Amino acid sequence: MHYQQWISSKTQFYQLPEPLGLESGGSLSNVQVAYRTWGALNSQGDNAILICHALTGSADADRWWQDLFGAGKVFDPDQDFIICSNILGSCYGTTGPTSLNPITNEPYASTFPAITIRDMVRVQAKLLEQLSVQRLKLVIGGSLGGMQVLEWALLYPDWVQAIVPIATSGRHSAWCVALSEAQRQAIYADPQWAAGQYSPERSPNHGLAIARMIAMSTYRSWQSFEQRFGRQIDRAPLPYSAVPKPAEGVSFSIQQYLYRHGQKLVERFDANTYITLTQAMDHHDISQQRGEYIHVLQAIQHPTLVVSIDTDVLYPPAEQQLLAETIPKAQWTSITSMHGHDGFLIDTQVLNDRVVAFGHSLGWGNALTASSLE
Amino acid sequence: MHYQQWISSKTQFYQLPEPLGLESGGSLSNVQVAYRTWGALNSQGDNAILICHALTGSADADRWWQDLFGAGKVFDPDQDFIICSNILGSCYGTTGPTSLNPITNEPYASTFPAITIRDMVRVQAKLLEQLSVQRLKLVIGGSLGGMQVLEWALLYPDWVQAIVPIATSGRHSAWCVALSEAQRQAIYADPQWAAGQYSPERSPNHGLAIARMIAMSTYRSWQSFEQRFGRQIDRAPLPYSAVPKPAEGVSFSIQQYLYRHGQKLVERFDANTYITLTQAMDHHDISQQRGEYIHVLQAIQHPTLVVSIDTDVLYPPAEQQLLAETIPKAQWTSITSMHGHDGFLIDTQVLNDRVVAFGHSLGWGNALTASSLE
Repeated sequence: MHYQQWISSKTQFYQLPEPLGLESGGSLSNVQVAYRTWGALNSQGDNAILICHALTGSADADRWWQDLFGAGKVFDPDQDFIICSNILGSCYGTTGPTSLNPITNEPYASTFPAITIRDMVRVQAKLLEQLSVQRLKLVIGGSLGGMQVLEWALLYPDWVQAIVPIATSGRHSAWCVALSEAQRQAIYADPQWAAGQYSPERSPNHGLAIARMIAMSTYRSWQSFEQRFGRQIDRAPLPYSAVPKPAEGVSFSIQQYLYRHGQKLVERFDANTYITLTQAMDHHDISQQRGEYIHVLQAIQHPTLVVSIDTDVLYPPAEQQLLAETIPKAQWTSITSMHGHDGFLIDTQVLNDRVVAFGHSLGWGNALTASSLE
Repeated sequence: MHYQQWISSKTQFYQLPEPLGLESGGSLSNVQVAYRTWGALNSQGDNAILICHALTGSADADRWWQDLFGAGKVFDPDQDFIICSNILGSCYGTTGPTSLNPITNEPYASTFPAITIRDMVRVQAKLLEQLSVQRLKLVIGGSLGGMQVLEWALLYPDWVQAIVPIATSGRHSAWCVALSEAQRQAIYADPQWAAGQYSPERSPNHGLAIARMIAMSTYRSWQSFEQRFGRQIDRAPLPYSAVPKPAEGVSFSIQQYLYRHGQKLVERFDANTYITLTQAMDHHDISQQRGEYIHVLQAIQHPTLVVSIDTDVLYPPAEQQLLAETIPKAQWTSITSMHGHDGFLIDTQVLNDRVVAFGHSLGWGNALTASSLE
C-alpha cells in the first residue's frame, strides 16, 4: 500500500472470486484488480473499449493518454464505455509483488510468482465479465500494452472486434531482452536489493534509478536528446537522493535529466514489480504453445491498425511492418516523431487522428468532428 | 600491474622525460607509454601510420584489427612504419588509474585526474617525437579512436597528411553521454565500488559487468542480436561470478552472451579506468576553446575518409555525414553491416578495402594487390 498515493481516488476495485490459475502452473488467491472506467455501457453491452497500459503505467489512462480523451476522439465517454485496469503484477492497486500474500500476511516481494502477458489478459477478461461487457469495439495499447492487445485477439477472438497494437512486437526481441536484463542487473547490484526482501525504507533505489536511466535512453532517441540537450551544461546542485555518486562538479543537462527521471521512478515504483513485469515482457511470444509465429499472426482475423514510431530503437518499425504484413486484415501506419519509442505517449494528437480515422473506416457510428479526420 | 597478463610481450615502453601538463590544469609525473610498432621508419621518417584504439582496446592492433595487417593492406609493415600506443588513462601499460602515483606509491585509483582526448593525443605526439617520426601518412581509428584522429588533425595539422575517423563524432552526443552515465552509475551502485578505493581482490565486478552489458547492447544492433540469438534458450549453468544474481532457471542465450561479455571485461579491465575513459569521451568536443563547431571542422585541411556503419545506433551515420560534408577535403563511405557500432571491428575486410582505395586515391606508392582495390 506504499503506492496508494499514486492511485487516483476514482479507482474502483474488483476482487476475483476464485484463485487465478497462472501460465507458470501456480495460482494466486485473493487477486484484486484496480480499474477506471469512463462513460457508460449501452444496453447491448457492445460499446466497450479496453486500454492496455505499458510497463510503469496505471489505470489512469486519462492522465497518461489525456489527448486521446474527449468528444470526437478515440476515447469519447459520450459514445463509449472505456475501461483501463492496472495490470497483474503492477503496484497501482492490482495484485503484485507489493501486495500482501494472504498466506503469510507479508508482502510477496520477490516470492511473487512469474507471470505472463496472458495472465494479465485473463485477469482483464474476468473484470470485463464482471462489468457485463459483451463486445469490445477496440483493444488498444502501446509497448507492453500492445503485447496485451495481441494476446487479447488470440485468447478472446470472439469478444474483440478490432485491435490497435502500437510500438510493440509479437515476441520480445533479443535486443529488448538484452536491455531489460542490464536493467534488472542494475537492481541486483544495489546492496539494498537484499535478494528482493528489502523493506520500503531500504529499497534498492539506486539500482532502480539506474534501470530507469537505461530505459529512458532507449525510450527516446539520438535525435530527441540531441535537439533537447545537446552539450548543454547544468550547474544546479544534484538533489537526487537515488543517485548518490554523480559525476563531480559540472554535469551535462542530459545527466541531470536522467537523474531526475531515475529519482521520479523510485518515488512511484517498486523494484520487485519492475523485475516481475520486465520478465513477463521478455517471455512475451504469441507463438508460445500455439505453433509457428507467422501462422499465429495469420490466424488473427480482426481489423487491425498497427502503429509504428519511425525513430523507435526498442521496437523498430520493421517489427510492426511484419505484424501488418502478416495479420490478414491489418493496415500499417508510421508516426513521424523525433521522440523514439515514447512517441506513442508524446505525439498523441497524431496518434489520436490515426486511430479515429481507423475507427471511421470500420464504420463506427460516432459523432466524429471534421477536424479529427483531417 | 594487475593487467600485465594482457600486455603483449612485444610491447615497448617510453617514459616521458618531463611531467605532462593536462587540459584540466594539473600535471602527471613519470608518465609511461606502452606501444607497439610494425615495420620500419624510412630515412625520411615519413612512412608512419598511427592507429588510435577504442575504449577498452590496447596497443595490440594486430590482434583487434588483424584483418587490416598484411601485404597490400592498410597496415603493410613492408611499406610503412605502423605505431599503436595504449592511450593515457588506460590499464594496458600506459599511465592510468591502476598505475602507481609516484608521490604516494599507491595506485592512483579514483584520484587519477580528469583527462581529455587532447591529453591522450599529446602523449602520442611525445612518443612519435621520440621515435623520430617526421610525417604521419595516416592517422586512423574508430569510436574513441576516431575522436583522437580528429584531435590529431587539429592539434598537429602539419604532422598529419591524411585522416580516417570511423564511427565517431566531433563532439559526444547527449545520447552517448546518457548511455555512458548509466554505465558509470552501475559501477557506483556496486557495494564494492568503495568510492573508487577498492582493492584488486574486491573490485566492483558486478557493476563493471553491468556497464559492459549495457555497452555491448549499444555496440551491436537490433538486427545482429535478432539474427544471432532471437529467442533461443540456453540451459547451461551460469559460471559467471561477476553476475551473482542471474534470472532464475532458464535463460535466453542473449542473457548468457551478456553475462559472458561482462565477465570477460572484469577479468581484463579496471573500473576506475572505465570511468576515467568514458568521462574523457563525454567531454570530447573539438570545438572546445576553438570556436564554432562548424568552423573548426572547416579548418581541417587534410584529405579525409569518414567511415560510417549503417546500423550504428551510438554514433549514427548522420554524425559522420556532417563531418564529411563540412571538412573540405573529406569523402564519406558507409559500410553496410548488421553489426552496429562494432562493425568497424567485425566487417574488417570491407573496411580494409575502403581505406586501401582511399590510400590509392592519395597516390600512396605501395604494392597494392589488384584484389584489394576491387
